[in-house]
Amino acid sequence: MQHYSLSDIKSWDRFYRGNFINSLSGFKSVSLIGTCNEMGQANLAIFSNIVHIGADPALIGFINRPLAAAPHTLSNIRDTKKYTINHIKENFVKQAHQTSAKYDATQDEFEETWLTPIYKDGCTAPFVEESHIQYALELVEIIPIKHNNTFFVIGAIQNVYLPEEIVNKDGFINIEIAGSIASLGVDGYYKCSPIARYEYAKVGEETKKII
Amino acid sequence: MQHYSLSDIKSWDRFYRGNFINSLSGFKSVSLIGTCNEMGQANLAIFSNIVHIGADPALIGFINRPLAAAPHTLSNIRDTKKYTINHIKENFVKQAHQTSAKYDATQDEFEETWLTPIYKDGCTAPFVEESHIQYALELVEIIPIKHNNTFFVIGAIQNVYLPEEIVNKDGFINIEIAGSIASLGVDGYYKCSPIARYEYAKVGEETKKII
Repeated sequence: MQHYSLSDIKSWDRFYRGNFINSLSGFKSVSLIGTCNEMGQANLAIFSNIVHIGADPALIGFINRPLAAAPHTLSNIRDTKKYTINHIKENFVKQAHQTSAKYDATQDEFEETWLTPIYKDGCTAPFVEESHIQYALELVEIIPIKHNNTFFVIGAIQNVYLPEEIVNKDGFINIEIAGSIASLGVDGYYKCSPIARYEYAKVGEETKKII
Repeated sequence: MQHYSLSDIKSWDRFYRGNFINSLSGFKSVSLIGTCNEMGQANLAIFSNIVHIGADPALIGFINRPLAAAPHTLSNIRDTKKYTINHIKENFVKQAHQTSAKYDATQDEFEETWLTPIYKDGCTAPFVEESHIQYALELVEIIPIKHNNTFFVIGAIQNVYLPEEIVNKDGFINIEIAGSIASLGVDGYYKCSPIARYEYAKVGEETKKII
């Protein structure tokens, strides 16, 4: 095993360090976040630092980069309180990735990337029609992370849309059957296939030493 | 597509809702977090809500459940400021899952699950020897999330250990080659295989409409 110290990490150029550190935390959920401003101008951007916070209430968080790097999604959420999260499939991953380009606030990423906005059930933020798993959120809190000027955005799930046949009897959603992908690092996209599901772990259950 | 409203979600029993909401946010990084208390008693627990916060400084966050449900990792981190994160491979995923059982503070999950603690480079928290990608963190901040009594724990990466041959020339780490897995929901584990990496996206690049 190679050992990389903090001083090694600090000595790297920023692209190398960005790729390395972004990959180190492991596979990530990757989705498109749809918002609009108060004038109704739509915005769409790819996010991969999305995290489950809790099921009751149903809360999801994501990390928004510093405002200078990624201003539109955050300001739209702050102003309108509404946003959508849309899973990505392999057949539109290139288009989804392209939403990370630095478009102006007046440019509509849906038009620029040939993805299709749809509006439903009173949500003012656009969903992505090409997406097979979509959900709407309402802003709960934006927590500024002072150590690097990022933001932890917490939202409450309001409405969910997905193919019923991928939901197991116990509520588990087989998102890989519908085609959802994962990401790694800044720009890597991955397919996932199941290894196993395990029972609720109890004290005293036997496990075996690996050989 | 099936539509699930917030009132549907609230009406479900807590296991169904837990499985559904936990799967909805997508594939997750899953790792073992190693800590010890001030007496040197080791603790090991599986966590899947881990999120990249930034590369410079190199910060990683994770969600810790409410104290009543998951007390030991958080109190050890609060007391000693040190912890390790260790990727999981398929050959010890069952053992890793077993660390989620509610062991007492006096029980050592390493012994209970036949995983091997190792100590190195001045980190008082144990690493998992079976793990192929390991890193040490120092506590930066614990942010209480008041909406559901969870905690967002932010740490700074101090030392990283991994097989050098899985790191590309640009710093991207091919964690799947070393065997790292992903998780879904409360109890699903997945293998991942690469689809593509894309160039840094620029305004004006052409994408094609999917058919």
